[in-house]
Amino acid sequence: MKDDSLYHFSLGTTTHDLPAMFGDVKFVCVGGSPRRMKSFIKHIAAELSMEDAKSEYPNICAGTDRFVMYKTGPVLSVSHGMGVPSTGIMLNELIKLLHHAQCTDVTIIRIGTSGGIGLAPGTVVITKQAVDATFLPKFEQVILGKTVVRNTDLDQSLAEELLQCSKELNQFETVIGNTMCTLDFYEGQARLDGAFCSYTEKDKQDYLKKANEAGVCNIEMESSVFAAMCKLSGLRAAVVCVTLLDRLKGDQLSSSHEVLQQRPQILVGSYIKKQEKNLTG
Amino acid sequence: MKDDSLYHFSLGTTTHDLPAMFGDVKFVCVGGSPRRMKSFIKHIAAELSMEDAKSEYPNICAGTDRFVMYKTGPVLSVSHGMGVPSTGIMLNELIKLLHHAQCTDVTIIRIGTSGGIGLAPGTVVITKQAVDATFLPKFEQVILGKTVVRNTDLDQSLAEELLQCSKELNQFETVIGNTMCTLDFYEGQARLDGAFCSYTEKDKQDYLKKANEAGVCNIEMESSVFAAMCKLSGLRAAVVCVTLLDRLKGDQLSSSHEVLQQRPQILVGSYIKKQEKNLTG
Repeated sequence: MKDDSLYHFSLGTTTHDLPAMFGDVKFVCVGGSPRRMKSFIKHIAAELSMEDAKSEYPNICAGTDRFVMYKTGPVLSVSHGMGVPSTGIMLNELIKLLHHAQCTDVTIIRIGTSGGIGLAPGTVVITKQAVDATFLPKFEQVILGKTVVRNTDLDQSLAEELLQCSKELNQFETVIGNTMCTLDFYEGQARLDGAFCSYTEKDKQDYLKKANEAGVCNIEMESSVFAAMCKLSGLRAAVVCVTLLDRLKGDQLSSSHEVLQQRPQILVGSYIKKQEKNLTG
Repeated sequence: MKDDSLYHFSLGTTTHDLPAMFGDVKFVCVGGSPRRMKSFIKHIAAELSMEDAKSEYPNICAGTDRFVMYKTGPVLSVSHGMGVPSTGIMLNELIKLLHHAQCTDVTIIRIGTSGGIGLAPGTVVITKQAVDATFLPKFEQVILGKTVVRNTDLDQSLAEELLQCSKELNQFETVIGNTMCTLDFYEGQARLDGAFCSYTEKDKQDYLKKANEAGVCNIEMESSVFAAMCKLSGLRAAVVCVTLLDRLKGDQLSSSHEVLQQRPQILVGSYIKKQEKNLTG
């Protein structure tokens, strides 16, 4: 394809010099919230001592309100909204962007929030495999009306390196485990506080305990499409999510969780800093 | 439930007087793009001659970056992001909000964009039924790991009233038809321009033609969860989407489509104005 419009980024091969803009990208960090991805680019710029003199990071996708994108040195920070479909749109266009820009050896990490199962709130989970609502490590993609099953393994060596990094940081508990990815936040995650609920507290507890026995440490809404698409395109990928609450003890979230949301940023920021140090000697 | 935090709106029953803030709401318009929902509130305020003297519409959900919400008189305008999961989160919290605020006789309309099949770009489609990728009128919701099937019928009299309104407006072509709702924008809609593609142009054409023969006029990513949840909660609901391109002729979108995106706003604005006139005599 000669001309390619990356519509939801408001970028394109005929309108932008993608190799000049993005050719040096080595790390891509993605997350649901636009504000958090802006906060991450400031954090990583400080970590890498690459602060912009003006301390301003223009939104590269300012032409659209679908996603935001920021860059400092070799690090790109992109939002993906909430859920598999929104994240799938972003990843399709991101993978095409990295291809058009002729990027090589790119590591991509999702930094997000999640509900934990049996973990103290604030625990960071590095995903081993993304599993579906029946605890199986697969992502179902419907193509031409037929279901295609895709693998959701993530890079195990990257997961181990991130865990090691967290041990060195020694600021918060971090574990490696499976992450359940659902298409819904309320009934899909056995919450009792949605607009509809046709099951009991006991049904909820039974389901979450079964998930936990199957190796599920936390629940979110993007890991399966992220793992599947990154694997298909050969990107080294990890998912790092903080747990905002223990779902065995409750369902409701409150804004008091905001400080916890920074933990994946701190861990991934520290990891990237270490890699850059190794590269530059 | 006594205390209810509507987390993704940054609103709650203990922190906000929801009946005072929202008790008079009669129309809720929802759409994916935050900017478009802001533009809609300005449009409807002008239609209803309720322009704010300062011409400012504060974002009621300013405490979060997940969704935006604006209000003028009896009309609420809320964004839902892209895709079924994001829209499901918004609708769960919206339905709870309307319940807490003791709203009655609420009509809810999704105004969006879509890809058309065999229709001139710019045609507005009012959805009869939302169908899945196999053209069946159902929405599958996974609850406690088991699939529950929900009905996706929309309010037929509301659809007819909207069609009549468009005839009176006489500004653009409007049809009633089925809308296919997919979980993916690229492979899920048989596009050839995504990051991955394992089928041919002929496979794509065959699939889209089969969809068209089954009554599908357009394709988008939110109508099924919208129809199912509104039906379950007894809200009178419609989906009004403009087609930005004819998918039989292409896949790529460009920003030149922006003027077309206003058509659902114009139609729904005109409909609400007519209803308000009838009510106030």
